[in-house]
Amino acid sequence: MPAPRTTPAAPARRRYDVGSLLGVAVGVFIERGYDGTSMEDLSRASGLSKSSLYHHIDSKEQLLRLALERAVEPLFEVLAEDGATSGRAIERLEHVVRREVEVLADRLPFVTLLLRVHGNTEAERWALERRREFDRVVAALVAEAAADGDVRPDLEPAVVTRLLFGTVNSLVEWYRPDHPGDVLAPADLADAVVRLAFDGLRT
Amino acid sequence: MPAPRTTPAAPARRRYDVGSLLGVAVGVFIERGYDGTSMEDLSRASGLSKSSLYHHIDSKEQLLRLALERAVEPLFEVLAEDGATSGRAIERLEHVVRREVEVLADRLPFVTLLLRVHGNTEAERWALERRREFDRVVAALVAEAAADGDVRPDLEPAVVTRLLFGTVNSLVEWYRPDHPGDVLAPADLADAVVRLAFDGLRT
Repeated sequence: MPAPRTTPAAPARRRYDVGSLLGVAVGVFIERGYDGTSMEDLSRASGLSKSSLYHHIDSKEQLLRLALERAVEPLFEVLAEDGATSGRAIERLEHVVRREVEVLADRLPFVTLLLRVHGNTEAERWALERRREFDRVVAALVAEAAADGDVRPDLEPAVVTRLLFGTVNSLVEWYRPDHPGDVLAPADLADAVVRLAFDGLRT
Repeated sequence: MPAPRTTPAAPARRRYDVGSLLGVAVGVFIERGYDGTSMEDLSRASGLSKSSLYHHIDSKEQLLRLALERAVEPLFEVLAEDGATSGRAIERLEHVVRREVEVLADRLPFVTLLLRVHGNTEAERWALERRREFDRVVAALVAEAAADGDVRPDLEPAVVTRLLFGTVNSLVEWYRPDHPGDVLAPADLADAVVRLAFDGLRT
């Protein structure tokens, strides 16, 4: 006879701060699209009344901006790391790609949101501009590595940049680090991306 | 004094067949999402009245199914080509990746739509099943190439498959072959993808 399950205590009333609210909001933005999300949807998903929501934030767009910052800030922090600022360009590029994968794994919903913005709001236009700035830094690294003779001369730096980003960004479509056992740990995934992109799959 | 512009002739009333209607519909589906597209939207985009639309097709979902077939069919035709069915697995894999990029470039809006289906309708579930089938064929090719010793032993075949697809599929985010001069021709793009994925960017 199965042991009787102990009655769980009534769940503690969930306490929200902006951080936990962002975690809920990013999921709703991804599922419904930012334009398709109402404060009503956010209220339902968070279990907070609309007036409680407005106690934490000024507007839906402020939530979007804060959510986008959660992706943009760590991506830019990577560019300031030692590995990204000293050494040969090809090694700095490798460092950036590796760490970018790790940030993506760590901030998966926020990076997913960042990759889906359209530019309809001020917050989205800010995020798109930050993405373009990031792209320019990486493209310059690729070009420098090519000038050093460390990138195959039959691959155009601009195309290498696009393909590298494409590979990294496509991880948001399938990588789910919350299914351990099922998938690679973030550092192993980063390693696989770097090996494939830098050295190729062929023996 | 600028020469007077000749008055253009009134545009000929556009003649539609299902093919040209699909070309319009796929653009609307991508822009608004399939769920967000009404027959009214399709009527506006095509310039056809709703009753004229129903002269060509039975339902919005039939249009979706036909649009998805325009991506699925050529992708599967690649798997039956000589290059995909004879020779070493690594060479067959290379052929499939190369041709898959070419199909994507040739059928760009249709492949974009295919990559965005959610599975809310019968047509979408059919497309998702076809995608899974395609993935299984490629994954088996990667595994066979690994068993031949032609894939680096430090890369798991399942991860290689995901990353290869990710790189190819990410092309829909930025490749616009209708801007010639600006971008690579499809065959050159396919070549760049194959070189990067198989041999890596490092010299």
